[in-house]
Amino acid sequence: MPIVHITRRERFCASHRLARPDWSDAKNLEVFGKCSNPNGHGHNYVLWVTVAGQQDPETSFVTDLSLLSRIIKEHVIDQLDHKNIDLDVPFMKGRYSSTENLCVAIWEQLQGPVSALGVQLKTVKVEETENNYAEYHGE
Amino acid sequence: MPIVHITRRERFCASHRLARPDWSDAKNLEVFGKCSNPNGHGHNYVLWVTVAGQQDPETSFVTDLSLLSRIIKEHVIDQLDHKNIDLDVPFMKGRYSSTENLCVAIWEQLQGPVSALGVQLKTVKVEETENNYAEYHGE
Amino acid sequence: MPIVHITRRERFCASHRLARPDWSDAKNLEVFGKCSNPNGHGHNYVLWVTVAGQQDPETSFVTDLSLLSRIIKEHVIDQLDHKNIDLDVPFMKGRYSSTENLCVAIWEQLQGPVSALGVQLKTVKVEETENNYAEYHGE
Amino acid sequence: MPIVHITRRERFCASHRLARPDWSDAKNLEVFGKCSNPNGHGHNYVLWVTVAGQQDPETSFVTDLSLLSRIIKEHVIDQLDHKNIDLDVPFMKGRYSSTENLCVAIWEQLQGPVSALGVQLKTVKVEETENNYAEYHGE
Amino acid sequence: MPIVHITRRERFCASHRLARPDWSDAKNLEVFGKCSNPNGHGHNYVLWVTVAGQQDPETSFVTDLSLLSRIIKEHVIDQLDHKNIDLDVPFMKGRYSSTENLCVAIWEQLQGPVSALGVQLKTVKVEETENNYAEYHGE
Amino acid sequence: MPIVHITRRERFCASHRLARPDWSDAKNLEVFGKCSNPNGHGHNYVLWVTVAGQQDPETSFVTDLSLLSRIIKEHVIDQLDHKNIDLDVPFMKGRYSSTENLCVAIWEQLQGPVSALGVQLKTVKVEETENNYAEYHGE
Repeated sequence: MPIVHITRRERFCASHRLARPDWSDAKNLEVFGKCSNPNGHGHNYVLWVTVAGQQDPETSFVTDLSLLSRIIKEHVIDQLDHKNIDLDVPFMKGRYSSTENLCVAIWEQLQGPVSALGVQLKTVKVEETENNYAEYHGE
Repeated sequence: MPIVHITRRERFCASHRLARPDWSDAKNLEVFGKCSNPNGHGHNYVLWVTVAGQQDPETSFVTDLSLLSRIIKEHVIDQLDHKNIDLDVPFMKGRYSSTENLCVAIWEQLQGPVSALGVQLKTVKVEETENNYAEYHGE
Repeated sequence: MPIVHITRRERFCASHRLARPDWSDAKNLEVFGKCSNPNGHGHNYVLWVTVAGQQDPETSFVTDLSLLSRIIKEHVIDQLDHKNIDLDVPFMKGRYSSTENLCVAIWEQLQGPVSALGVQLKTVKVEETENNYAEYHGE
Repeated sequence: MPIVHITRRERFCASHRLARPDWSDAKNLEVFGKCSNPNGHGHNYVLWVTVAGQQDPETSFVTDLSLLSRIIKEHVIDQLDHKNIDLDVPFMKGRYSSTENLCVAIWEQLQGPVSALGVQLKTVKVEETENNYAEYHGE
Repeated sequence: MPIVHITRRERFCASHRLARPDWSDAKNLEVFGKCSNPNGHGHNYVLWVTVAGQQDPETSFVTDLSLLSRIIKEHVIDQLDHKNIDLDVPFMKGRYSSTENLCVAIWEQLQGPVSALGVQLKTVKVEETENNYAEYHGE
Repeated sequence: MPIVHITRRERFCASHRLARPDWSDAKNLEVFGKCSNPNGHGHNYVLWVTVAGQQDPETSFVTDLSLLSRIIKEHVIDQLDHKNIDLDVPFMKGRYSSTENLCVAIWEQLQGPVSALGVQLKTVKVEETENNYAEYHGE
């Protein structure tokens, strides 16, 4: 059977601040710029999750998209949407809320449940603004 | 000379919380839902400002777009971008950070400087997510 | 209190055919072109509903957006999404499924429930493809 | 019969330069900025044409969209697409190629043929970049 | 000569139903959900075809894009656009109209004609809605 | 440390003409079609630059995005934006302004400065219109 890639898009609206707690506000401003504003800022993040697998001979599906969507919602979106990433999100505890860290952390959240579907997690892509996005391929 | 409408798009990334300080968290949750999360959330807001006027006989412009953009940046974007709307923005002091209030407050910020350009402010449109936007026409 | 316009976007995926039952296939093809293919075709329709009203002094909202969304889902989307507009949709019975008729019929579906919210229905906009849309203002 | 608005989107890729021939390059640079580069620049322009009319009792159409599209192509797009607006476009002769002038000139090109369809031309909107557009309503 | 990838976007509006004829409506509903509605539904599908090859020393093109577009139109779009995928499309006969199957079938339609252009077919991507797409790389 | 890919989007508005100076206008028209119009045409080009690297242990960044953006602006955008690609752009001298050549030339402009950031240049993608784009991976 052919191997097909399937991508699901989900969205979350969250606030965050880029700053190291062991640095002064001045140092944080120097390194993280306007992203280190002490009271934070926020984004409409867009998440694309790509999985790959052989088509199921019965349904021709790689995987049930509504099931994939439910997994992403449960393990990622419900924890991030309308939240403060730095304060409210257990799986981001101890990591700065950079787009890079979000990508890797979301990958870690999804790898188990996606594998349990019998498909392979290929890419987690997080768009922060229309001009910037990060991708993690598990390497 | 014909009257033409000109629209300029600008963007700002900000955090906020919808909550009345005189209400309990429970009451705020009941009325404002997930938007009342105590630690806030955020958006990539998109702002469209529409002005109208007669074309200038010398340049055929309704107004100099780079000047209009500079005015929007100075009076609106620089105060909102990468900020917490509730805590950092002087012109939003004393108002909940609903999209409706943002629209009206941005109109008030722009009406003077836009009039000084010799054109008429027609519409302020603020998009909060791809599914929601508010518009104010000064009525 | 200022009058603000609020717009909510919703989507539905539906099939349809443009054809008059009292015309021959040849006549339908002549008038409706490829849209009259006997086995139908379909679209990802995008719906924008705009309402206007004074801001509520307690919440600053024109209306509760999640309530507006629920009304649109109940009265419009649930009846159209993943349906055949010509065969499955009670409120389209007896009308060709042109974008014009969809606009007017959706307006009629929403006018009562939107008025009951205490706001005014201003515009129903239906996008059929990225190149075509129709709008109805109740005139 | 209800009055419905119909909008058709078309695109054209063209080059132009903003400059008055009776001004020096320095004066043009001062007023028109980078848009006055002597060798020109270009855009993917997007055009939206909105017409309004009563629905036809036979077809429920305001107007035949493929006919409207053909009229826009013949009177506007074929003359602008893959052209230099300043040098190649008869209907722009003697006017600077500002977005304002494009809007008004396209209105003049379309008003006759659109009226001949039995509908009213309502708006010509020309988008120059994702951040700027102009609209003309015939006023 | 460098190897460059070129992607062409095309669109088709089609209806379909996800259902196995050897299953009951209840079983189809259980597995395929709302996509198994007996009277079908539809989508504005978006197709991206990516080919790769060395640049031609005479033209610097990987391939003539208008020729590639014509090939996609002839072998894919003309057979799918404004059609019912399950009933009207010869190359989909005997396959469920899942996005996965569409991807693989479109690849099979294009592989011969694209190879005849002297370039390599790399990816067929089919977007069903703004939230879902499938990709096939020929593996 | 995980290897993450970061993509930055930038835009430039430019004019160009596809034509070989050693060919007649008729031959150029035959090969390059409407793109060979003697007075040129233009586009809103969109550029995506993807780099990859290990996350910095101090900041969690692959690279400072504002620095990457500045490099792209200095080495690419400032030379192309509001310019005629054939006449005004030193790094395109002696090459036809095809999207393929733009991709490869932009890669060459960026490879040095991006390597100096300590990250790897992975992809340069240039979108000419909403229907066409080219990508170069340095192969």
